[in-house]
Amino acid sequence: VNEFELIARLTQHLPTNEGVVVGAGDDCAVLHAYDPDCYLLLKTDAVVEGVHFNRDAVPEQIGHKALGRCLSDVAAMAGTPRDAVVTLGLPAAFEASWAERLYEGLNALARRYSVAIVGGETVQSPDRCFLSVAVLGSVLKDKCILRSGARAGDALFLTGELGGSLASKHLTFEPRVREAHWLAEHFALHAMIDLSDGLASDLRHILEASKVGAEVLASALPISHAARLRAKTGASKKSPLLAALTDGEDFELLFTSAPGNAVRLLDTWKQQFPHTRLTCIGKVTPGPGVVLKTKEGVQPLSAHGYVHFS
Amino acid sequence: VNEFELIARLTQHLPTNEGVVVGAGDDCAVLHAYDPDCYLLLKTDAVVEGVHFNRDAVPEQIGHKALGRCLSDVAAMAGTPRDAVVTLGLPAAFEASWAERLYEGLNALARRYSVAIVGGETVQSPDRCFLSVAVLGSVLKDKCILRSGARAGDALFLTGELGGSLASKHLTFEPRVREAHWLAEHFALHAMIDLSDGLASDLRHILEASKVGAEVLASALPISHAARLRAKTGASKKSPLLAALTDGEDFELLFTSAPGNAVRLLDTWKQQFPHTRLTCIGKVTPGPGVVLKTKEGVQPLSAHGYVHFS
Repeated sequence: VNEFELIARLTQHLPTNEGVVVGAGDDCAVLHAYDPDCYLLLKTDAVVEGVHFNRDAVPEQIGHKALGRCLSDVAAMAGTPRDAVVTLGLPAAFEASWAERLYEGLNALARRYSVAIVGGETVQSPDRCFLSVAVLGSVLKDKCILRSGARAGDALFLTGELGGSLASKHLTFEPRVREAHWLAEHFALHAMIDLSDGLASDLRHILEASKVGAEVLASALPISHAARLRAKTGASKKSPLLAALTDGEDFELLFTSAPGNAVRLLDTWKQQFPHTRLTCIGKVTPGPGVVLKTKEGVQPLSAHGYVHFS
Repeated sequence: VNEFELIARLTQHLPTNEGVVVGAGDDCAVLHAYDPDCYLLLKTDAVVEGVHFNRDAVPEQIGHKALGRCLSDVAAMAGTPRDAVVTLGLPAAFEASWAERLYEGLNALARRYSVAIVGGETVQSPDRCFLSVAVLGSVLKDKCILRSGARAGDALFLTGELGGSLASKHLTFEPRVREAHWLAEHFALHAMIDLSDGLASDLRHILEASKVGAEVLASALPISHAARLRAKTGASKKSPLLAALTDGEDFELLFTSAPGNAVRLLDTWKQQFPHTRLTCIGKVTPGPGVVLKTKEGVQPLSAHGYVHFS
């Protein structure tokens, strides 16, 4: 049983109530608020030593990453993060200054987005540290972007660049909260997700939720300098293209919109966010399945990457 | 640096915003809702294998405990739990059926209180399982009971019985959500907390937040059968009284109310909850500090228990 199969099993029969708009399975849970114009958003996530960060990582960056992942999920709904609560799992022998520095990174990111940290628990975790964060946010009902709204014919857009994130960016990425707000404010987005497991994997979540397929243009993919460098120096055995498709931990936004919006979207984005790329990487198809279009032709794209022609 | 000192350091300079009513340091965070009559409540907590449960524990009970701890914190504000999100940390080699049974316990408790489980993440946790739960709840503004409202002269009340919880109750306790609602509905409670670290320790949180002291009557303490049995059989080296004061994991409610309410409170409780004890265990004093009154006299009570006369 892999992670996705397990999550599917575990979330199959979850309890619900009349306040739930969208339960498990999107970037955040969407809940009725008392305000008839708004939804509440709720999300939790955790980072574990040796899995999501190493013990020798800069402590401030561990705190940054743990909160940043949840803010990225709120961004993927075009929401505003409001409050966060934190549980820090610590071995018996820990340095208080390490935990304080971790919180400093977390607090600095929180302040930048006016997020209040409203609870801090510590628990014993004998072997490894972990940091679990839950974030509460809100979103105007008519601006909330789910994974399930993509339509055949939509253009597929991507912020930033992909691949090689584990070389450093995964600990310092800026969650795309402001970009998502601006996008939802100015354009009718049909579906959106943030990329944590890699484009090849996360794109499928939008497609499955929307019951469509996609065609991705290999030549259009914005491959990061880090991914190219790692391939060149042999630090990674993946080609830059495969790294961009599968490395994960990019925390960029992937979204769809009607193709007629493409020119204005790309133009106005460049004025608004001159230092961040926005790329049209393909289109939504009736599907099912994902194909990668290269100069050699069209090949199926699996969650783990493309299948070489034999 | 012990746990409380660390939490005090970490939570000293947390970011806040205009939506926060009470941040870190009470049972839950209290947040402004859009509804002018209500607050939102937010709380997270985690249980770790080998610390809060053993690998051979009944999986359903682990799920029950993880959610139950958060529901107990919502109860301690007299709030209503609404939604929960869950992160399950799992070693690479886990049995899917174990995780499913854990969720069954969690789901069963959630259903009993109409709590929706609106997100289920899994993360790798190579050595030990952990289960982190965040709960969102709500409370009517004029019913929300903080830790900080105790007044000198108040009577101190306690639900249930104390001590010996680790013998079994810690995995199966029922969070006192209904009891707390009923209490807040019918009586003016001044302060409330749920007991997780033990009466001697958790009582201090109310007293420090309220800037008062307390006198606890040793002869009044409702000592559990488990605590007496463990002392008798030698399973625990603590006297039954010390076990009741310090064992922890009781998840009972400790609250204060004006002394004039005591008789009606105890009488009507007995009719409403005939199977659960409610005991007046002492009174709030101008303080500072906590004393334990025994037949030998009055002695200071530390967070770790009473100090024997030398």
